[in-house]
Amino acid sequence: MLSSMQDVPLTVTRILQHGMTIHGKSTITTWTGEPEPQRRTFAEAGARATQLANALRDELGVREDDRVATLMWNNAEHVEAYFAIPSMGAILHTLNLRLPVEQLIWIVNHANDRVVIANGSLLPLLAPLLPHLPTVEHVVVAGPGDRSVLDGAAARVHEYEELIAGRPTTYDWPELDERRAAAMCYTSGTTGDPKGVVYSHRSIYLHSMQVNMTESMGLTDKDTTLVVVPQFHVNAWGLPHATFMTGINMLMPDRFLQPAPLAEMIEREKPSHAAAVPTIWQGLLAEVTANPRDISCMANVTIGGSACPPSLMEAYDRLGVKLCHAWGMTETSPLGTMAHPPAGLTPEEEWPYRITQGRFPAGVEARLIGPAGEVLPWDGESAGELEVRGNWIAASYYGGSDGEPLVPEDKFSADGWLKTGDVGVIRPDGYLTLTDRAKDVIKSGGEWISSVELENALMAHPDVAEAAVVAVPDEKWGERPLATVVLKDGATADYEMLRSFLGESIAKWQLPERWTIVPAVPKTSVGKFDKKVIRRQYAEGELDVTQLG
Amino acid sequence: MLSSMQDVPLTVTRILQHGMTIHGKSTITTWTGEPEPQRRTFAEAGARATQLANALRDELGVREDDRVATLMWNNAEHVEAYFAIPSMGAILHTLNLRLPVEQLIWIVNHANDRVVIANGSLLPLLAPLLPHLPTVEHVVVAGPGDRSVLDGAAARVHEYEELIAGRPTTYDWPELDERRAAAMCYTSGTTGDPKGVVYSHRSIYLHSMQVNMTESMGLTDKDTTLVVVPQFHVNAWGLPHATFMTGINMLMPDRFLQPAPLAEMIEREKPSHAAAVPTIWQGLLAEVTANPRDISCMANVTIGGSACPPSLMEAYDRLGVKLCHAWGMTETSPLGTMAHPPAGLTPEEEWPYRITQGRFPAGVEARLIGPAGEVLPWDGESAGELEVRGNWIAASYYGGSDGEPLVPEDKFSADGWLKTGDVGVIRPDGYLTLTDRAKDVIKSGGEWISSVELENALMAHPDVAEAAVVAVPDEKWGERPLATVVLKDGATADYEMLRSFLGESIAKWQLPERWTIVPAVPKTSVGKFDKKVIRRQYAEGELDVTQLG
Repeated sequence: MLSSMQDVPLTVTRILQHGMTIHGKSTITTWTGEPEPQRRTFAEAGARATQLANALRDELGVREDDRVATLMWNNAEHVEAYFAIPSMGAILHTLNLRLPVEQLIWIVNHANDRVVIANGSLLPLLAPLLPHLPTVEHVVVAGPGDRSVLDGAAARVHEYEELIAGRPTTYDWPELDERRAAAMCYTSGTTGDPKGVVYSHRSIYLHSMQVNMTESMGLTDKDTTLVVVPQFHVNAWGLPHATFMTGINMLMPDRFLQPAPLAEMIEREKPSHAAAVPTIWQGLLAEVTANPRDISCMANVTIGGSACPPSLMEAYDRLGVKLCHAWGMTETSPLGTMAHPPAGLTPEEEWPYRITQGRFPAGVEARLIGPAGEVLPWDGESAGELEVRGNWIAASYYGGSDGEPLVPEDKFSADGWLKTGDVGVIRPDGYLTLTDRAKDVIKSGGEWISSVELENALMAHPDVAEAAVVAVPDEKWGERPLATVVLKDGATADYEMLRSFLGESIAKWQLPERWTIVPAVPKTSVGKFDKKVIRRQYAEGELDVTQLG
Repeated sequence: MLSSMQDVPLTVTRILQHGMTIHGKSTITTWTGEPEPQRRTFAEAGARATQLANALRDELGVREDDRVATLMWNNAEHVEAYFAIPSMGAILHTLNLRLPVEQLIWIVNHANDRVVIANGSLLPLLAPLLPHLPTVEHVVVAGPGDRSVLDGAAARVHEYEELIAGRPTTYDWPELDERRAAAMCYTSGTTGDPKGVVYSHRSIYLHSMQVNMTESMGLTDKDTTLVVVPQFHVNAWGLPHATFMTGINMLMPDRFLQPAPLAEMIEREKPSHAAAVPTIWQGLLAEVTANPRDISCMANVTIGGSACPPSLMEAYDRLGVKLCHAWGMTETSPLGTMAHPPAGLTPEEEWPYRITQGRFPAGVEARLIGPAGEVLPWDGESAGELEVRGNWIAASYYGGSDGEPLVPEDKFSADGWLKTGDVGVIRPDGYLTLTDRAKDVIKSGGEWISSVELENALMAHPDVAEAAVVAVPDEKWGERPLATVVLKDGATADYEMLRSFLGESIAKWQLPERWTIVPAVPKTSVGKFDKKVIRRQYAEGELDVTQLG
């Protein structure tokens, strides 16, 4: 039986209209490096977004489904692009300015971007790419920066402010199907080509509601959020959309992401919330330790992107700043979990919950898949690969202009769940703890051994400087762990001693038989253990491996 | 272009699954009148809901789309029915136990209810109806109360606890289309037959998210909500669904809705939030004034159903309890507006916002339609009929088992918006103030005159005990106001004096020409002015009307 309810599409357009009217007085404050930041209300930004849509359509000829890219920092103009482009039925494509140049070129060409809106300060990055971007017909430049680097470009160059000036502040927005594409963001996979995730109006709308729910960030129009996480990275964790839905004020650092200006903007603008990766918080901590400032306004901070060291959370606790773990990925929009502890606990009792990845919201279903493909219980002990399902979770990757969507088997289950590539356990009350990456876990005789757990146990030995554990082929067990150890200067431990030390905390069947001492663990460009290299070195016989009985 | 996101239906089933796992430790506390209330966790209630679904299917033969009615107070069993029935694909039909008997009979027959789940304490109401309810095959009785009144009933009678005992706590829930019917609730219109609103899984899910957003009630799993607003009245304003989504504890009064037990449960259980109509708050205020108790735990209270007298809000302010206006109706699920003031104001500056109906959430679009059918600006002055649009707003009424949906022209616009029947103004920042009912507003020469405004101005005169103003036909202007006045004992004011008093605050063209003094204003059964009766009395010449120059 059908209901008697209205059926109204869930769209970015609706979020724009709501934010610029009901929350028209809320503000976007963008750092400028000048004595005063730039301040703009949601009503003003909404009117300018509408002018931008008119300009894109009437001046640049942008049509529905056209891809309009942004190469921008977090600032008010980027927020305007966030709303203008999807609302007119085109697709916002945020470009990650940290990617290697060849990946950026590949991505723009794969997405068929017709327009790039770029910050002036990023033109030195963009200019050398342009000759390799044949689909880009227009470059729109916003904010300060030398334009002359674009001289001679084949694309037409526009000034953002001149382009929108005098355009109408109304637009006959199309009534879009909520399942249509609104925005896209490519993941920079360590293997293979980058993969494009295409967000829908529906996914963005529902994700925005979730961000604003008390289970998640739960901000109000009395709050200001310092959006450090880049708008080019998974929609800045959904904050620009969420803020327009509930009127949360935004503080945008633009290119001033160094610890000193961040500390200054916190002290001056007093955000109650912030969102950033652990590296940012490490740097800020060092800054406010060296040059003390009161940052206790930030009662509620969301930290994600990679696991946060507990010591960092404790250091911020002492400053009156509570860091709350969130877990997610480009494919999950990204809100997967948040680590708010359950009610009624003391700070000591809250601690074991705070160091988990957190709980899933109603919009995200989760299951753990064990070594044999079985669904594991939420018992806090059974480790499996995390799979998730929900309206803001990807079902495929963009296949290019004339390609079918890509549904790689290692990323999506047969019944359509996203394989996160993360291995972990879930407690009975739904708190997730990630223990390893699926590609690094050791699949030994139908059971899984966490490489990270072995590494942490090894590195607790006083003689061990570093240790990496990787899976290597084993005739009997399929895979077994290989322990790669870097000893400290003057260390006296040998393999047997290390193994018996490990045996104090690790089950016997998980202990490595294969050991090697190396001068250094190979690392990736961002400083992570490069386990691919170790596995290759082992396969090619480059390592001096000792086999214990 | 299509997105690459998953498409998962938004269902009540999903809310159930989330609440009973992630928020499994949250509690439903039901008042019993015994020394100890009944306490049940969401995990337990969810398991029992699952058992109920099994029982309804396997023992009672309930199939998808079957209507299962409830005649129940607010209690844990009613919450179980809320989740079991829609999750299995059947339709929850909440019966309003305050309705006249003949309306209840009409409604059950119109809905074709196959099952009624009733509280034992309500069997004296149900038993005499049963002979008139031929479609009702089963009655399931929950909670205390004499069963013997059902002796001889044609329907099969079941004990709730016996029915669910030992049934499986798992159920292969169907994957339902989110637009399917989940629940229905009839409005008791003052004219014509009751009208059934059929909520969808989508509407309930989105409404639940909105209730949990900070713009609306914004509760967390650290909160407890005292749900006084009945579950038979617009899904208790969505609270049972919203609580399972975010883990808010529920305090349920069952049949103990009198001021004294309410005050006791507040003092003992310390809810941080409550939801009820003004009458309840009036009664509770009298109770805690006579028998002081500390009720300041309720920092955040939602009040709706009818306008709250400002004096009541002030009285609760002094008790540390903040009442927040909400506006809605059965057709709006009901969340239409909430009157949280904007940020950064002093208590004095907040006051003008708190006495409005409040702001619309992103999920509700609003427009005011003027006397000539034109869309009016949000200028705080232009009064028009409020029309709303959104996913939890009705598009039609239930037409019966073999009827088409009813789309009366006086309730729905040609382009599908709901005509609320309320007249008001909207400020530029989106705050709604309702000034009249559309049926009571006086349509005079293409302009509208608020009957309520005239009444309030008249009642401010020291000689006036009561005053009702109604529209009466006028040859020149279409309609003009008729002032019906009840004078206080010993009053000396005459019509001319009253009119000149009115002229001090009301525009001249709005002043009534027609006046009558009556001994009492006719009232409806719930104590509201019965303007239909006054209009009829005028039409039939029963009133002694004086015409001023």
